[in-house]
Amino acid sequence: TRSGFPEVVYAPGKTNEQIVSAFRMLQAADQNCLATRCETEQAEAILSEFPEAIHHPAARTVRIQRHFEQTGRVAVVTAGTSDRPVALEAIETLTWMNIQNDLFIDVGVAGPQRFLAVKDELADCDAVVVVAGMEGALPSMVAGWLSCPVVAVPTSVGYGASFSGVAALLSMLNSCASNVTVVNIDAGFKGGFVAGLIASNCHRASSD
Amino acid sequence: TRSGFPEVVYAPGKTNEQIVSAFRMLQAADQNCLATRCETEQAEAILSEFPEAIHHPAARTVRIQRHFEQTGRVAVVTAGTSDRPVALEAIETLTWMNIQNDLFIDVGVAGPQRFLAVKDELADCDAVVVVAGMEGALPSMVAGWLSCPVVAVPTSVGYGASFSGVAALLSMLNSCASNVTVVNIDAGFKGGFVAGLIASNCHRASSD
Amino acid sequence: TRSGFPEVVYAPGKTNEQIVSAFRMLQAADQNCLATRCETEQAEAILSEFPEAIHHPAARTVRIQRHFEQTGRVAVVTAGTSDRPVALEAIETLTWMNIQNDLFIDVGVAGPQRFLAVKDELADCDAVVVVAGMEGALPSMVAGWLSCPVVAVPTSVGYGASFSGVAALLSMLNSCASNVTVVNIDAGFKGGFVAGLIASNCHRASSD
Amino acid sequence: TRSGFPEVVYAPGKTNEQIVSAFRMLQAADQNCLATRCETEQAEAILSEFPEAIHHPAARTVRIQRHFEQTGRVAVVTAGTSDRPVALEAIETLTWMNIQNDLFIDVGVAGPQRFLAVKDELADCDAVVVVAGMEGALPSMVAGWLSCPVVAVPTSVGYGASFSGVAALLSMLNSCASNVTVVNIDAGFKGGFVAGLIASNCHRASSD
Amino acid sequence: TRSGFPEVVYAPGKTNEQIVSAFRMLQAADQNCLATRCETEQAEAILSEFPEAIHHPAARTVRIQRHFEQTGRVAVVTAGTSDRPVALEAIETLTWMNIQNDLFIDVGVAGPQRFLAVKDELADCDAVVVVAGMEGALPSMVAGWLSCPVVAVPTSVGYGASFSGVAALLSMLNSCASNVTVVNIDAGFKGGFVAGLIASNCHRASSD
Amino acid sequence: TRSGFPEVVYAPGKTNEQIVSAFRMLQAADQNCLATRCETEQAEAILSEFPEAIHHPAARTVRIQRHFEQTGRVAVVTAGTSDRPVALEAIETLTWMNIQNDLFIDVGVAGPQRFLAVKDELADCDAVVVVAGMEGALPSMVAGWLSCPVVAVPTSVGYGASFSGVAALLSMLNSCASNVTVVNIDAGFKGGFVAGLIASNCHRASSD
Amino acid sequence: TRSGFPEVVYAPGKTNEQIVSAFRMLQAADQNCLATRCETEQAEAILSEFPEAIHHPAARTVRIQRHFEQTGRVAVVTAGTSDRPVALEAIETLTWMNIQNDLFIDVGVAGPQRFLAVKDELADCDAVVVVAGMEGALPSMVAGWLSCPVVAVPTSVGYGASFSGVAALLSMLNSCASNVTVVNIDAGFKGGFVAGLIASNCHRASSD
Amino acid sequence: TRSGFPEVVYAPGKTNEQIVSAFRMLQAADQNCLATRCETEQAEAILSEFPEAIHHPAARTVRIQRHFEQTGRVAVVTAGTSDRPVALEAIETLTWMNIQNDLFIDVGVAGPQRFLAVKDELADCDAVVVVAGMEGALPSMVAGWLSCPVVAVPTSVGYGASFSGVAALLSMLNSCASNVTVVNIDAGFKGGFVAGLIASNCHRASSD
Ligand SMILES: Nc1ncnc2c1ncn2[C@@H]1O[C@H](COP(=O)(O)O)[C@@H](O)[C@H]1O
Ligand SMILES: Nc1ncnc2c1ncn2[C@@H]1O[C@H](COP(=O)(O)O)[C@@H](O)[C@H]1O
Ligand SMILES: Nc1ncnc2c1ncn2[C@@H]1O[C@H](COP(=O)(O)O)[C@@H](O)[C@H]1O
Ligand SMILES: Nc1ncnc2c1ncn2[C@@H]1O[C@H](COP(=O)(O)O)[C@@H](O)[C@H]1O
Ligand SMILES: [Mg+2]
Ligand SMILES: [Mg+2]
Ligand SMILES: [Mg+2]
Ligand SMILES: [Mg+2]
Ligand SMILES: [Mg+2]
Ligand SMILES: [Mg+2]
Ligand SMILES: [Mg+2]
Ligand SMILES: [Mg+2]
Repeated sequence: TRSGFPEVVYAPGKTNEQIVSAFRMLQAADQNCLATRCETEQAEAILSEFPEAIHHPAARTVRIQRHFEQTGRVAVVTAGTSDRPVALEAIETLTWMNIQNDLFIDVGVAGPQRFLAVKDELADCDAVVVVAGMEGALPSMVAGWLSCPVVAVPTSVGYGASFSGVAALLSMLNSCASNVTVVNIDAGFKGGFVAGLIASNCHRASSD
Repeated sequence: TRSGFPEVVYAPGKTNEQIVSAFRMLQAADQNCLATRCETEQAEAILSEFPEAIHHPAARTVRIQRHFEQTGRVAVVTAGTSDRPVALEAIETLTWMNIQNDLFIDVGVAGPQRFLAVKDELADCDAVVVVAGMEGALPSMVAGWLSCPVVAVPTSVGYGASFSGVAALLSMLNSCASNVTVVNIDAGFKGGFVAGLIASNCHRASSD
Repeated sequence: TRSGFPEVVYAPGKTNEQIVSAFRMLQAADQNCLATRCETEQAEAILSEFPEAIHHPAARTVRIQRHFEQTGRVAVVTAGTSDRPVALEAIETLTWMNIQNDLFIDVGVAGPQRFLAVKDELADCDAVVVVAGMEGALPSMVAGWLSCPVVAVPTSVGYGASFSGVAALLSMLNSCASNVTVVNIDAGFKGGFVAGLIASNCHRASSD
Repeated sequence: TRSGFPEVVYAPGKTNEQIVSAFRMLQAADQNCLATRCETEQAEAILSEFPEAIHHPAARTVRIQRHFEQTGRVAVVTAGTSDRPVALEAIETLTWMNIQNDLFIDVGVAGPQRFLAVKDELADCDAVVVVAGMEGALPSMVAGWLSCPVVAVPTSVGYGASFSGVAALLSMLNSCASNVTVVNIDAGFKGGFVAGLIASNCHRASSD
Repeated sequence: TRSGFPEVVYAPGKTNEQIVSAFRMLQAADQNCLATRCETEQAEAILSEFPEAIHHPAARTVRIQRHFEQTGRVAVVTAGTSDRPVALEAIETLTWMNIQNDLFIDVGVAGPQRFLAVKDELADCDAVVVVAGMEGALPSMVAGWLSCPVVAVPTSVGYGASFSGVAALLSMLNSCASNVTVVNIDAGFKGGFVAGLIASNCHRASSD
Repeated sequence: TRSGFPEVVYAPGKTNEQIVSAFRMLQAADQNCLATRCETEQAEAILSEFPEAIHHPAARTVRIQRHFEQTGRVAVVTAGTSDRPVALEAIETLTWMNIQNDLFIDVGVAGPQRFLAVKDELADCDAVVVVAGMEGALPSMVAGWLSCPVVAVPTSVGYGASFSGVAALLSMLNSCASNVTVVNIDAGFKGGFVAGLIASNCHRASSD
Repeated sequence: TRSGFPEVVYAPGKTNEQIVSAFRMLQAADQNCLATRCETEQAEAILSEFPEAIHHPAARTVRIQRHFEQTGRVAVVTAGTSDRPVALEAIETLTWMNIQNDLFIDVGVAGPQRFLAVKDELADCDAVVVVAGMEGALPSMVAGWLSCPVVAVPTSVGYGASFSGVAALLSMLNSCASNVTVVNIDAGFKGGFVAGLIASNCHRASSD
Repeated sequence: TRSGFPEVVYAPGKTNEQIVSAFRMLQAADQNCLATRCETEQAEAILSEFPEAIHHPAARTVRIQRHFEQTGRVAVVTAGTSDRPVALEAIETLTWMNIQNDLFIDVGVAGPQRFLAVKDELADCDAVVVVAGMEGALPSMVAGWLSCPVVAVPTSVGYGASFSGVAALLSMLNSCASNVTVVNIDAGFKGGFVAGLIASNCHRASSD
């Protein structure tokens, strides 16, 4: 496609056959394959035809990796333990894009020392994905320490007035840090993709 | 009143005469007086009868202080410069309650070093009032460093998806720090009052 | 931790092993342990390693109490019978904090005599937690009779335009009683924790 | 009209001539006249043709009373001083309907003794109109003491999370008192009209 | 109780024993009994102790009728077939109150002839309950033809932008017919109760 | 344009010069011209260059008519007097489209006889535009009597829980009449345009 | 009925017997029959009495076709694969109305070439139904290329801030293309019906 | 600062002196200066001390440019004429960042040919900022043709159900194009900054 990355299969509402046939075409074109939001049955349909496929149940992804050389560097950071599935969808997306990636879980705002400990490991990233539910304050805090774009992914983690991610979404949209942009609630794929695209284009640029 | 503090005059919708007569009764009972959300004209009506009254235009308060010995300690912290009027309403309320108080402006999340600099000055407070608009992330960050209750006051500062303080309100209600409670948007008086009550009761208790 | 209270384990999204290992560390440090929002299976995992743990299914908590001397006093009051699970989460939290506590169920606004009967029992509390769904009017009514801070906990009890607790939340945020602060919908833990912290600090202060 | 009461002129969006001509027709039919939500200029247009008309600027009504014998009894009660304009629109409507009426201002929830003092004066009403902004808790409290229908009128009085009357409206819709019904925000006319209709029909019934 | 009607048992969140014991007390006082929003199991618990109780599964009520003489007259009208359960809760409530009542199903706005056919049967009611979901337009149409109060009950019937009854609720609150008041979404009990109270008071008045 | 109708100038945010120059181009192409949402100053700028232009201040439109033969027939119906400006924007649009049109004001739901009186005049329309604020019930009522498409235009007329047209919009979207579609709040232009397009295409079809 | 089309049976909340009896009456009058939103059990009840009925499980419709000659032409276009069930409800409705129809799946905004490929096939339609969830942008894009009315049907397809179709609904209501009208979320029947009515009236007109 | 760009002055709520003194410090450090959301008076205060400053009234910015060599390339595209002020804030920000930039006004969705004409000029950008109000569909359409990240800026342009930019915001968050991220409503500065940061980092990378 135009972005240099092939289409990703968004599984909800698709038949097993539709998904598998999309993977067949991508394989024929020697492309990495990725399906997101897969139910177990959909994943099994892919695996039974492509045993080399990697099903990540927590991330709800199925991926076939045909190319392994990685460029760029993106970190994915979460506020809490419960944000992990969304973060993993971002990680799987970045791996599929051949972007070098790292995952930092549970470095939320309420335990500020935990973030200070990982801060230095984020310094040389091309972009950082920050995944947080509840009050969604982590992107603001992280972004203040970084010079690269921060892609904020609100999650539906929380209860009551978190309104299934709306509190985190609004918090992120209003971040007073200027390097924060936002994607949809629970949109781990999109968070990973945009960050990966930034990293990829930097290194394409630098290798031109 | 039951809380040991006299009634405060909420000025909107009251005639000058109603406000002044409330002050007269409080004066007769040798009480400190406070009116909040005063328009200029209402403030002038009070001042023309009680020249010793202190009109704070930014806080929109008028106060008469008859007692000056202070107990306890409450800090009021704001995320940005624009949150100042709400913070000042809290400060005026604390002064009227005879609680020792300090104001720290513009120590928001995006400039994390600024907060680290004032952190130690908050350590011995009985309660801290945190005033923030936009993403309202400051209470979460402050509360993680403190052992006293944090009263979070969302402000209507911001634009777009701040929805006149709703983003900050939701963020604060969902704070993952367990010592954060919340009052209404722009409720500087209530933020100051609850914090002052906590401080006052502690010291009443300790002097019993 | 900074507040003098150890971390509480918020169970959703955690594996049994993660929860049990958190309890092991707290035990090693001779601390009371508390896990909230536990599913039955998570509770059983704790109990199989720590038979002395107390599982409160209605409150959805598991607690290990190693210290029993209580200070301070907090009452938890509910408007209706259905608010009981949220109130019990607050009660369990206060017990874990070693704060003396009492529970008053079903003293809601529509039966005003019932509240008048318990009013005197609340007079010497350091803080009162008021738990209410539907119209959320109880904190306003209770707070008018008390001199201590009132921590209002809206619940998702109700139907139709209660919007899963939003009506109660808004009502509480707009309380015209100045001693009312608010926490998240169904946040029994937080309501109990903030009230317990107020009580604890008062008595720490008074015993200094 | 069918209800036995003539049409009321809702002034917004009408020309002076349209309003005056409606009054002319009502006069010709020997009816009481009422216009609501009148701007000053509209009121003056009526007064210049009908000098006997009574313009109540706070209520924003203009009324011509041709019949004076009153039946039934309705009380209008407000939580605060700022709810007075809405209450006065209800009072003017009841007077126009020839229903005996009384106004009780500022007996809100936070000063519970004030309500207890007026409670007995409400006992023999056919219906009671309760007007409240902010948390809108008064109807729930009043209704618990009364045996007649309570018509709750939320007002846009308040700030922040009162959302121009939405908090009060939701609170009233969720009232756990079974004798409470609700009309639109700031709908003093409708609150008065429904209460007056209940009173009027009772006494029509009783005199049949 | 003050309204002359005994307490009704709202079943959600109550144990079988709590419900049955409430019925025992009412029986002892020779009162009609009503429980609303009962689950099957709760209903069976009542029936096993009081075989004379009437369980209406569609209305989700259980009722014991000890008094049968009826006064007054209230009609319950629904817009569609799916609004029937809510209407039946109102009908059961009116029967329990000993108010004569009639049910008219499916006379909605889109088939205007159907309403014209029943219009005359509503003419002599003391109050009419109108139950409608989706666009909630029926109360406005009905009220224009009637001289008694109309109690509008929005239902959660509909899909998409009906938002579980919000569209109907807002429509009813904004009715341009002056004799319309509103209760909570799906509040069949409250709609019936207020209408029954109006009817009851009229006839109490007329028989004084 | 593709629809057979030239572009309409939406005036907000445009300079006088931009608007006038758009009219110049349309004139050069011998087209009818229409500008909507014009401020007085913008209208005067057009009139000073094109004295034949017709400025309709209530509709906020400026129109130049070069072709006068009309086909088809569309009626525009309003619920109240205050909905007139939005209805006039629809009427001006239909005139500009050379569709025969009629305006019926104030035939709202609460006065059902008024609608029955005009019903027959709507029977032969190709489409009917129904304009209503407050509860927005008129389209449902009108549509039940008609065999053509009804284009519903919610208006921001109302107060309180009308939420500037949201109540009417939701009511219309949920209409149980199958021939009702909806356009944006206050979108008189769009309501008129779609109805006019339906009428125009019918007659283009019939004259082919 | 007035529109020339018989009543459609909306199945939710109806008994099997009510639905079947409605079909019997339509059959007796030699009409096509349509039931929408049918559960499997309801569909089977119809089929067991009318074996010629066509149950479309994805569309959730049951249809009996007695007349087959088609007039007019309407296309139904969807943005994604998951919008198919809603589109099929529209298709079934059009078939029942005897309007010639075509379905184009998955021509969404993000793959612009796909739409350009089908654009020409839409040119001679009397109306086009555009079905889209997520951002709901497709109607705006399609409408710019067409001269007929576009009926936009938002779907609840999406996640997070799609809010079950609200994002798509708002997008469609604000379309800057003047030939777009909107129906309720997931309202495939209504979208199909209005488009079919436009087509039907055109051709009735042209054959007069 | 960490991002390599100095702080920008957000003018609302700041005194003239605070703003000017911030500019003095930046000048002393030989930095470009930018103030956003300036009122005329604030702009004049800057200009009177720094006559070389450039005040852009439509963008509401004041800028002092000390460095002129530009790298990278970002295009700013708007859907309508009214989105221009927000786009200009982005343009001024990019110029201040020394990023080469171009502005394309009024290439909205409803006139698809207009976008096709500029598409090629966007092909070599490092990032594209898309500014749109109303239905906010343009980013989805633009992003499908591009391989770089698209930063979508919703604007408050529109009326009725645009809800001051909420419709556009939701549309953009739900974009089915994977390269779209979103910033706050009317956040021209942030849109420009993030796009500029992407461009700047690419070229820093490529020149390392
Ligand atoms: N989890 C996801 N969330 C949002 N968009 C996705 C996701 N996974 C894939 N997509 C996008 O959806 C497109 C495919 O949509 P479809 O045509 O329905 O298969 C892909 O090219 C991606 O841009
Ligand atoms: N029920 C609860 N609601 C909100 N916060 C809680 C709850 N239970 C525990 N917490 C907080 O969550 C923190 C632990 O979060 P986590 O790191 O996700 O385990 C604790 O220290 C508490 O402050
Ligand atoms: N303040 C008010 N709020 C709501 N409805 C009103 C008000 N005043 C008058 N009305 C109603 O509006 C009807 C007249 O509306 P109109 O035809 O616009 O003059 C009256 O018969 C009343 O039912
Ligand atoms: N009052 C209105 N409401 C909505 N859309 C309008 C209105 N007036 C004109 N338009 C549309 O806006 C388009 C022109 O937009 P613009 O490019 O901003 O001039 C016209 O072709 C119409 O489709
Ligand atoms: Mg954690
Ligand atoms: Mg600052
Ligand atoms: Mg109770
Ligand atoms: Mg008062
Ligand atoms: Mg029906
Ligand atoms: Mg009227
Ligand atoms: Mg697709
Ligand atoms: Mg344009």
